[in-house]
Amino acid sequence: MIYPVILCGGSGTRLWPVSLKAKPKPFLPLVGQTSLFEQACARVADDARFGEPVIVAGAAHEALITEQMDGKPHRLIIEPAARNTAPAIALAAEVLDPDAIMLVCPSDHYIAKPEALREAAVAAAALAAKDYLTTFGITADRPETGYGYIRHGRALDGGFAVAEFVEKPDLERAKSYLASGEYSWNGGIFAFRAGAYLDALAQYRPAMAKAVKASVAGARSDGSVIHPAPEEFAGIEGDSVDYAVMENTPNAAMVPADMGWSDIGNWAALQDALIEQEGNADDQNVVRGRADLADCTRVLAMSDGPRVSAVGLEDVCIVVANGEVLVTTRDGAQKVGKLPGAKDQ
Amino acid sequence: MIYPVILCGGSGTRLWPVSLKAKPKPFLPLVGQTSLFEQACARVADDARFGEPVIVAGAAHEALITEQMDGKPHRLIIEPAARNTAPAIALAAEVLDPDAIMLVCPSDHYIAKPEALREAAVAAAALAAKDYLTTFGITADRPETGYGYIRHGRALDGGFAVAEFVEKPDLERAKSYLASGEYSWNGGIFAFRAGAYLDALAQYRPAMAKAVKASVAGARSDGSVIHPAPEEFAGIEGDSVDYAVMENTPNAAMVPADMGWSDIGNWAALQDALIEQEGNADDQNVVRGRADLADCTRVLAMSDGPRVSAVGLEDVCIVVANGEVLVTTRDGAQKVGKLPGAKDQ
Repeated sequence: MIYPVILCGGSGTRLWPVSLKAKPKPFLPLVGQTSLFEQACARVADDARFGEPVIVAGAAHEALITEQMDGKPHRLIIEPAARNTAPAIALAAEVLDPDAIMLVCPSDHYIAKPEALREAAVAAAALAAKDYLTTFGITADRPETGYGYIRHGRALDGGFAVAEFVEKPDLERAKSYLASGEYSWNGGIFAFRAGAYLDALAQYRPAMAKAVKASVAGARSDGSVIHPAPEEFAGIEGDSVDYAVMENTPNAAMVPADMGWSDIGNWAALQDALIEQEGNADDQNVVRGRADLADCTRVLAMSDGPRVSAVGLEDVCIVVANGEVLVTTRDGAQKVGKLPGAKDQ
Repeated sequence: MIYPVILCGGSGTRLWPVSLKAKPKPFLPLVGQTSLFEQACARVADDARFGEPVIVAGAAHEALITEQMDGKPHRLIIEPAARNTAPAIALAAEVLDPDAIMLVCPSDHYIAKPEALREAAVAAAALAAKDYLTTFGITADRPETGYGYIRHGRALDGGFAVAEFVEKPDLERAKSYLASGEYSWNGGIFAFRAGAYLDALAQYRPAMAKAVKASVAGARSDGSVIHPAPEEFAGIEGDSVDYAVMENTPNAAMVPADMGWSDIGNWAALQDALIEQEGNADDQNVVRGRADLADCTRVLAMSDGPRVSAVGLEDVCIVVANGEVLVTTRDGAQKVGKLPGAKDQ
């Protein structure tokens, strides 16, 4: 049995003004009719392979999660503070049995081929059962400079050892990675035996491991909602699972997966996912809401109310939501989170 | 004495969604604090040189004109129907004394140097008094393809004979016109002796001249507002003063004028006028209302309410007004009037 651990910490400020602090990216139906969170849960809702999910989220989003889980059994761990992924995963590992296999999934990514994830999860779980700390290597299909890469090492049963984690490369290096065939994207999906993860954390981040253990030991439960003790947790120095554990352990493994993955990391990435989904090979425009486009190519026009009219644009995203109007080039989409509007919420 | 004739027929649909049918371009403060109409009137409000203006407008805009004239003496002729400039000017010519010198001014253009207009008007009036049908030749400062051109003929006192009116040229031809120094833009500003204009109209458009005469003969007056008889006027086949008269008469003259003129014909032209006015040589961005621009160059951002946020754009106009959102490239600005939003009002 594999226990999904769904992480809901993403703020999605680069998808402002649709993604707001009060209702951020995971809880919005950005691709398809259901939210990214709902899709993340549905992908691993197969009772034959997956156990009851453990969701880790901030208190601000408890109501949204309860609403979107719609009565389906789950446990919800409320992070007392946002301290990045390493402690968030440790909370779930402490709550689960040490021998449970955890499948750690971000709640704000899009996966076009969920069956490919499930198949990779089975392979990854087998490696995790042998105490490999296993990450999923997304098959790269373009020289992307916005993601970290994993270099494949020696073959393992169902995957590879990790030779090296590589930071976001420049374009030239990204091209050589793609050409070599030896690199995959690091998609932030992991399989661990809970005890193995906690052991590694205790080795590489002992203070963090200790604080999480104490916080869970002092937890208060309210039905299926677990409130770890805040004092112990708040003192943790935040860190990502990649930095805290994966880049340190000699037992890192990688399972390759070609699952139509996108982190929907900004408006351009969402636009790509929507173009893919619609299969609009002609002008590659995507419209959500009322919009009239004239002489436009690769324009995303999205509005929750007012009509959008556009003329002559190329590679531009226009987003009208929550009383705000955003217009960004695809290249500029990375900077949306730094705009006064995105920060002033 | 020169009698200003202010034409208010312009619909300004290319400046949608700020310009609406109910309150179109002439009546909006697009450049500066007062409307283009108010500026058109103020430019020729010097009592020593100019008489009481005659305003020609549609019934829909009577209240706007009364409000914006703010008690200043004027006559207002209500066009019974929109039939383009030749009949509109003829209405004013019929109302004025045949020997009156008319200075025909569009109400929806911008003139940065009004004194240059006034000086040219004196020269044009002198030619008009000699029965030249006189147009103003705007000094070209770029190879503009959006305007008609006038080729200069022999020198006259204070101006030139018109050798030729030239339709909007392609870019190559526009460049050769600019290089030759023999061409000016046709700015739609004219000086006529009223009787001379009506004589020319009778010669080249006899049916139109007759219908206008009958319409004014049957006019109903209401204080300073004149309502020409609608039946006679409605039957007129509309035509511009350029086609109906100027291109036919052998007595066309031209007075050159370098007056910082713009027809504010679309969002790009307005953007240019605002850049010029602000003297923003740096990024050439112009903001009206709430807007945050990051990495933008030559962006016009205008909003009557919601904040506009923009990243990475170049040569784009963003206009949020009256519940509509328009995003157009400068090149696309010509097509704004054809958008469903602009037509559906």
